[in-house]
Amino acid sequence: MPRRSLSALILDRKSPVPLQSQLARQLKQAVQRGDLAPGEPVPSTRELAADLQISRNTAVGAYDQLVSEGYLEARPRSGLFVMEALAGHTLPAAVPVTTPAVRPLPRLTAPPPFHPCQPDVRLFPMGTWNRLRGRALRNNGSAILHYQSRYTMGLPMLQRELAAYLRDSRGVRCEPEQVAVTSGSQQALYMLAQLLLRGPGATAYLEDPGYFGARTAFAAAQARVTPVPVDREGVIPPARLKAGSLLYTTPSRQFPTGATLALPRRMALIKAAREGGAWIIEDDYDSEFRYSRPPLPSLHSLDDAGRVIYVGSFSKVLFPSLRIGYVVLPPQYVEAFAELRTVIDDHGPLIDQATLALFIAQGSLHSHIRRCRKEYASRLAVFMETATALRLPLRFPHTDGGMNLCGELEDSSVGDAALAARLTEQGWSVPPLSRYALESAASGLVFGFTAFAPHTIRLHLRRIAGAL
Amino acid sequence: MPRRSLSALILDRKSPVPLQSQLARQLKQAVQRGDLAPGEPVPSTRELAADLQISRNTAVGAYDQLVSEGYLEARPRSGLFVMEALAGHTLPAAVPVTTPAVRPLPRLTAPPPFHPCQPDVRLFPMGTWNRLRGRALRNNGSAILHYQSRYTMGLPMLQRELAAYLRDSRGVRCEPEQVAVTSGSQQALYMLAQLLLRGPGATAYLEDPGYFGARTAFAAAQARVTPVPVDREGVIPPARLKAGSLLYTTPSRQFPTGATLALPRRMALIKAAREGGAWIIEDDYDSEFRYSRPPLPSLHSLDDAGRVIYVGSFSKVLFPSLRIGYVVLPPQYVEAFAELRTVIDDHGPLIDQATLALFIAQGSLHSHIRRCRKEYASRLAVFMETATALRLPLRFPHTDGGMNLCGELEDSSVGDAALAARLTEQGWSVPPLSRYALESAASGLVFGFTAFAPHTIRLHLRRIAGAL
Repeated sequence: MPRRSLSALILDRKSPVPLQSQLARQLKQAVQRGDLAPGEPVPSTRELAADLQISRNTAVGAYDQLVSEGYLEARPRSGLFVMEALAGHTLPAAVPVTTPAVRPLPRLTAPPPFHPCQPDVRLFPMGTWNRLRGRALRNNGSAILHYQSRYTMGLPMLQRELAAYLRDSRGVRCEPEQVAVTSGSQQALYMLAQLLLRGPGATAYLEDPGYFGARTAFAAAQARVTPVPVDREGVIPPARLKAGSLLYTTPSRQFPTGATLALPRRMALIKAAREGGAWIIEDDYDSEFRYSRPPLPSLHSLDDAGRVIYVGSFSKVLFPSLRIGYVVLPPQYVEAFAELRTVIDDHGPLIDQATLALFIAQGSLHSHIRRCRKEYASRLAVFMETATALRLPLRFPHTDGGMNLCGELEDSSVGDAALAARLTEQGWSVPPLSRYALESAASGLVFGFTAFAPHTIRLHLRRIAGAL
Repeated sequence: MPRRSLSALILDRKSPVPLQSQLARQLKQAVQRGDLAPGEPVPSTRELAADLQISRNTAVGAYDQLVSEGYLEARPRSGLFVMEALAGHTLPAAVPVTTPAVRPLPRLTAPPPFHPCQPDVRLFPMGTWNRLRGRALRNNGSAILHYQSRYTMGLPMLQRELAAYLRDSRGVRCEPEQVAVTSGSQQALYMLAQLLLRGPGATAYLEDPGYFGARTAFAAAQARVTPVPVDREGVIPPARLKAGSLLYTTPSRQFPTGATLALPRRMALIKAAREGGAWIIEDDYDSEFRYSRPPLPSLHSLDDAGRVIYVGSFSKVLFPSLRIGYVVLPPQYVEAFAELRTVIDDHGPLIDQATLALFIAQGSLHSHIRRCRKEYASRLAVFMETATALRLPLRFPHTDGGMNLCGELEDSSVGDAALAARLTEQGWSVPPLSRYALESAASGLVFGFTAFAPHTIRLHLRRIAGAL
């Protein structure tokens, strides 16, 4: 090793980085710079130790590392050489030892008023959840930490609790094996689109205005997204649906208008799906939140032809960052769904699934829903009273459920997008109805009311009234 | 209401189901059977109450429910009628009140010996993890329960910890913003295939034998999967790679053979990718587990052309059911990756991400890896000693790392699949090498050794020796 490169080796004895690591790194840099060329011999460990005033062990250790990393090779009875095979390769510069400057991390924030579809997570009984999580860990032992690729559809205990819950609360009749636990309902929509929409150009009917998470999922499957108009009674059932198509609908509470689909329309949708050989995806995203009357029967419960696929979520009922949704599959699609899930991400975190199963089984889900219903009903009342008293220039159709209110603009000459943008600049989140539109000329602002305390609702509605 | 249908209403006063619910359900059934036809009047609540000997409130409540569910309609000054609009629709039978028989749930199990790629989850410091989870909840307040769709790539605190960890342990140089947290490394492979393999027929080069999770991900993107042979030094670099193709490789420890890719081959792979305009996916699935020497530099750290995408996982280092993996993306793919993730499932559970960030930051990850390394090194030694002493008819190439040992069959006339099937019947899981093959004629059995205590290894190797 020529003197010039040896003299470039400078070891910092005050550094927390061990001398051996410093030496190994600098030797690599010498190779990378070309100071040490492929095939060239390196000094003996004795020479190196003497020159750098380090122990011979340190030199041996550094050379060992470079041999095992393929920078140096030993030749019998000749010593160590820079790897011949490196000739002709440019080695990139080694990683600098310095730590990059630490920038402050952004703080996580709660959604601003009146961001739609947000539960009030402060109502969530985290103490109970944590206790049940501890029990789930004790009940299942370390097995719950392993892969459980047999249960890519979900833990059997959770499938069973979900089937019972859906039967009791929504009249959904299914075997536990038909229930797939997904990473939010978004994953259910994505996977259904991949499975059901065969080949580019298959038709996906979407409510207009409608949920854009569904739209992006269908677009990813290269579907032809076809709008279906919505009025005050929900989606207007098409007379016929193409074979092999699917129709996405939110019958309990149309998103974002809030309309409840009338029973005859429910029957008509099922008839059209049966006759056309089409699928209906029923997204029952917030049906738990009804404040006075019992809900209409789910499409799934009315379906005598096995054409309805039921999708739901715990994002609204528990908390969004849990990322647990579910889908009730037709029996003939269970296997294909499980297989696709294996390819996409195998399964979701299991401790959460086991905790949720206990949370449902011991009645905590029901109590929490009851508590939220009561709280949200009073927030809805506060919202409507305040909006009426302030004479907001918006028409709110009557609703007795859900998480959102869709205010139609009384002055239709005002663009809702411009208005919403102005409110966004001032720190509110009130998306324009037109954002959810495909072809419809709907114009309005969508207000969520469930995540905000009554005084917040009053305060911010007053300020918004001023801004409007 | 004709007498025949009224007489069919039988209320069970001993049932836990409230009388009103029973009555509502039976009235619906009468409509569904056609006993009550669309347009037909129903008895007054007074009549119904008298006939059934129930309170009038009960009758009123049941009728209210049927009105709100769309089965009945009120006509001014005439009373209630079965909804006219139901004419011509067949209503399905109502959900039976009975609870389905409860079948016993399967118990979750640990993997059988010698299932490959399994960590010993009993070593995981769950107490520490739970403590840090509590701290994550306190630090972030309820904000961590909300959607955080801005952070679909991962919580910024976790991205930062991961970038630092990968820099220090694997020489991976990246900005925190390039790190995407995924639902296991499988999701990273699936998403990369969707993003990088444009259109049917794009080429995905796969090590042969190789990891089939990658194969299924590439097949789902309709790629042409092209095998690349593997020898004792790992994958043999193709002279050229097609433009727009990708090559999947496991250089630290080839899966399943266990070979470590030599440095000149690493350089050759990068050269081929650079010259061909191809991508390399480096799956570093178990590089943390090396027992004597430092690892070779990662492909990513050697890549001066920005063609290597680095994929890793916490399934082996922490525990599999956590479902956290990651990928270091080229800067130009960050936006597209985040957008696709929004369509697929938005993001994973956030409490786990915040907990993991603290676990890395406070040094628990390093301690846990050190502990596992020590334990696994001794299990590797026990395995090799026992296998040698038992004279198993298998050749185990030398390895000093990883989680698996690939035993080549000395008698190549014996089919490894038949042999593995025989061992599976007896409760072991020792997959045949041929299961991972595309075209190669590799024959052998893959043994995982990390999840099993030394006495388990000795016991079951002895029994397997008997069975062979």
